[in-house]
Amino acid sequence: MTLQAENLSIGQYLIQRLQDYGIADVFGIPGDYVLSFYTMLEESPLNTVGCTREDCAGFAADAYARVNGMGALCVTYCVGGLSVCNSIAGAYAEKSPVVMITGSPGLRERVHNPLLHHMVRDFRTQYDVFEKLCVAGAELDDSQTAFREIDRVLAACQRFKRPVYLEIPRDMVHVVPGTPAPAPQPEPRSDPQVLAEAVSEAAARIEAAKQPVLLVGVEVHRFGLQDEVLHLAEKANIPMAATMLGKGVVAETHPLYMGLYEGALGREEVTKYVEASDCVVMLGTFMTDINLGIYTAELNIGDCIYATSEQLRIRHHHFHEIRLQDFIGELSKRDLKSSHPRRAPTEWEPESFELQPAAPITVSRMIRRLDEQLAEPSENDTIVIADIGDALFASTELTTHGRSEFLSPAYYTSMGFAVPASLGVQIAQPEARVVAIVGDGAFQMTGMELSSLVRGGLPVIVIVLDNGGYGTERLLHPGDYEFNDVHSWQHHKLPEVLGGGHGYDIRTEGEFDQALTTAWAERSQPSILQVRLAEEDCSASLERLAEMMSKTVITGKETSS
Amino acid sequence: MTLQAENLSIGQYLIQRLQDYGIADVFGIPGDYVLSFYTMLEESPLNTVGCTREDCAGFAADAYARVNGMGALCVTYCVGGLSVCNSIAGAYAEKSPVVMITGSPGLRERVHNPLLHHMVRDFRTQYDVFEKLCVAGAELDDSQTAFREIDRVLAACQRFKRPVYLEIPRDMVHVVPGTPAPAPQPEPRSDPQVLAEAVSEAAARIEAAKQPVLLVGVEVHRFGLQDEVLHLAEKANIPMAATMLGKGVVAETHPLYMGLYEGALGREEVTKYVEASDCVVMLGTFMTDINLGIYTAELNIGDCIYATSEQLRIRHHHFHEIRLQDFIGELSKRDLKSSHPRRAPTEWEPESFELQPAAPITVSRMIRRLDEQLAEPSENDTIVIADIGDALFASTELTTHGRSEFLSPAYYTSMGFAVPASLGVQIAQPEARVVAIVGDGAFQMTGMELSSLVRGGLPVIVIVLDNGGYGTERLLHPGDYEFNDVHSWQHHKLPEVLGGGHGYDIRTEGEFDQALTTAWAERSQPSILQVRLAEEDCSASLERLAEMMSKTVITGKETSS
Repeated sequence: MTLQAENLSIGQYLIQRLQDYGIADVFGIPGDYVLSFYTMLEESPLNTVGCTREDCAGFAADAYARVNGMGALCVTYCVGGLSVCNSIAGAYAEKSPVVMITGSPGLRERVHNPLLHHMVRDFRTQYDVFEKLCVAGAELDDSQTAFREIDRVLAACQRFKRPVYLEIPRDMVHVVPGTPAPAPQPEPRSDPQVLAEAVSEAAARIEAAKQPVLLVGVEVHRFGLQDEVLHLAEKANIPMAATMLGKGVVAETHPLYMGLYEGALGREEVTKYVEASDCVVMLGTFMTDINLGIYTAELNIGDCIYATSEQLRIRHHHFHEIRLQDFIGELSKRDLKSSHPRRAPTEWEPESFELQPAAPITVSRMIRRLDEQLAEPSENDTIVIADIGDALFASTELTTHGRSEFLSPAYYTSMGFAVPASLGVQIAQPEARVVAIVGDGAFQMTGMELSSLVRGGLPVIVIVLDNGGYGTERLLHPGDYEFNDVHSWQHHKLPEVLGGGHGYDIRTEGEFDQALTTAWAERSQPSILQVRLAEEDCSASLERLAEMMSKTVITGKETSS
Repeated sequence: MTLQAENLSIGQYLIQRLQDYGIADVFGIPGDYVLSFYTMLEESPLNTVGCTREDCAGFAADAYARVNGMGALCVTYCVGGLSVCNSIAGAYAEKSPVVMITGSPGLRERVHNPLLHHMVRDFRTQYDVFEKLCVAGAELDDSQTAFREIDRVLAACQRFKRPVYLEIPRDMVHVVPGTPAPAPQPEPRSDPQVLAEAVSEAAARIEAAKQPVLLVGVEVHRFGLQDEVLHLAEKANIPMAATMLGKGVVAETHPLYMGLYEGALGREEVTKYVEASDCVVMLGTFMTDINLGIYTAELNIGDCIYATSEQLRIRHHHFHEIRLQDFIGELSKRDLKSSHPRRAPTEWEPESFELQPAAPITVSRMIRRLDEQLAEPSENDTIVIADIGDALFASTELTTHGRSEFLSPAYYTSMGFAVPASLGVQIAQPEARVVAIVGDGAFQMTGMELSSLVRGGLPVIVIVLDNGGYGTERLLHPGDYEFNDVHSWQHHKLPEVLGGGHGYDIRTEGEFDQALTTAWAERSQPSILQVRLAEEDCSASLERLAEMMSKTVITGKETSS
């Protein structure tokens, strides 16, 4: 597609290209260095979504990108931009394609290097910082190259599924370069001969294996390869497991799905099956510590096929210049046969849950009740977003029933992701039922983004796991340390402060049951469920995890360099 | 002073040196990569102050540093560290000596370059980012150099009054290097011959001038030179003005004090006097845009003496290797005489204020009432902290009565500074009466740090200027833009959410008067005063400023590159 770009200004061209990539909403906060572009945004078909803080806009854009394919945020220079470093870093670490747009002082204001407000060291400081946190970036300071730079940077975002940086000096926004739109650059393809050899070897190994297994990671979702992976599994009758980050990428009710593989942390049955496999096919999996059970995973690399967007390795040798989508695509087209009988897949059966209305609520029982809710037939998709800590670990016990129903920052593990992320997801999928689960410590960081949910009439259900502190840390590092305590909030009263939404104060299973039922039926306002947990309460997963991690956390004491 | 350091671990040595620099409190949030050091902190004489978010800890440490001389914060790796980029950038821009301490993965965990949680790109990403935002930094990864590195970095913090970065891999905290403490490095002094020539020339110029004036900037406070500057002014009977950032550095009730000099934005009388001067002595002044009235200042450099920590310039020539404290110190020791009569200084007289109890409150009248309160004799110091926007511009009309009574981020202008800063200031000066003035937009960013004020029983008075939006931007860029609206909060109900503090809902002068009186008498809990302003209400200063700035904001439209 070639744009009629001759009459477009740099700002207009950028807005057009964002739409070409399927972006319909931009999160952010205006500021004087970006007011000119922000105004253009507001007058464009794009929808601007105001947030309480810039880092929240970053988390919202990240989550939006995860469900929509690409996302964007727009902030002002330095005071805005440097406030989203952590959100963008998280998007980089977990491969979420976010376009960060920022204004900056006009080129004509920079003569004689004056000290303009919002400046840190020099005019390039912000760019220098984001060079470390983005996969590509450009300062649109030259009208002759601006269109080409926009195209290059957006293409990198889509290709690498990582954040990119675009800085527009405020006096460049309305400049009309008068140059044609650059010819579309073909995306690099896989080398056909390398691809053929790799796919053939992988196919042969899978066919020959006695007990192959697919280990599904989050990149399968990022690159939209769920259908191919399911096809591959079903055709050759291969059982599947998922990593924590990949949870929900294939429906957990699928008959070939076994559960999460998390080394010693996961269900023993899954761990044993995967580790006894003579051909583990890891597709789009991040080999990270928490994702793989803090290195308790025991996989024999000599028996693995490991394919991600960054590398393809079969046993101990590597294939270069292969795109993940080509490898999985071609592999799924092979008519894989197996000379060995395969393990009969387990039928998924919902665990029955019997409510004990008067019993004090615990995190495990809460998850069970929520799981029951997720199992109910619904016309709308449900998307659960888990924050860090037991919000994440307990949530791994939930069962996802469709595709892409579970989001979490399980690798970068930045607290405070869930509530702003729920804003991004609900904007991207207005019909979905979105549930955010967040600890009380993380809620203090970004939970007031609830304000934007109220403002937008977005019916997100926010569940606050309130145990009065940083619960995971208490377990990691036992002892009576005051720094793990968090000041107590009456979260259920926040709707009075925000002038909307519904608050619930929950101490028993019955209260949770009622609140969840009511909140589920509400379609025009968020609900906040303050679930009061005993300080020592935690999920079985967290208990196992903490036991293993506590061995790593305080390691220095006994040793010297 | 040489420490008996042979038996100290790296963590213990750092804690000892922080105390040597007068730091008694450390702001932060724990996390697993820093838990080991955090535990050591909690067991040390240092007081740890938990915050709701890391960037708030950064603002609190910055404000603490401004009133205490040096401040510190402690956060975990990446998810913590990258959340304080903006706060540290602000400290860099405005020269506030903050020590940022961060944990990181243990050296022994890094073998084979694993993907550990909280990692962005590689193990050095965080360090790379903060290299751009700090004046010095070190990763304490070598026990043989650790003590020396700590000394070097802390000395740079004190000398340059800018933030520094210290990263401790978690397995290095308890390592005992067994090396002696490094010998103290003498601070570089000014070259005596250069100094003598510069001071003589400056003295001669001041003595010869018909109408000299001192323009006092914030560095006079950072380097503790208030007494020297007052001595200089009083001895030679030289009138003083201050910049916005330097407001309150000398008491505004001093008979030689004329007011703020802000170019066309300030009071005409001051502007005329300064610009007619044949010898403007600028001491520790940042020549920044907002500070100098968005370049409406008309100073003739050929008539200026310009001394900061970074340069000394007299007329058009420069003197190198001169420390600000030596220059001001020596100059103040000269027995300056003047052959010209000087303008008789004006006596400061408080403007009388007559309350109109039923009148709707406006920002100007609110400031007048607050000014009256500040004028009342009190046994405790009062410190006013102004956030950005009209919180800042209106506050410039306040009169400070002692030293260091006014804090604001008037150069970097990062929204959301005031509330967390008030935590830092109140911790540093428990007896002071601290008032934070903040807009409703900025409050949404960091205002929930009120939680820590409630938790600590700290009687800060938080005044929220509630006009339902980003008021300054509305003026900068008139038009009915939705993105300048902010969702309405009932701030006065926050005490119910936080389980402490007092809330006031204020619409009239009478209500403000009563709330301020009650809040002033409260000594054990914060108060939050929600001052409801008309959307179009603003101070005279902001109106003047907006008029000038709006010419710069949307500059691109009429031009092309």
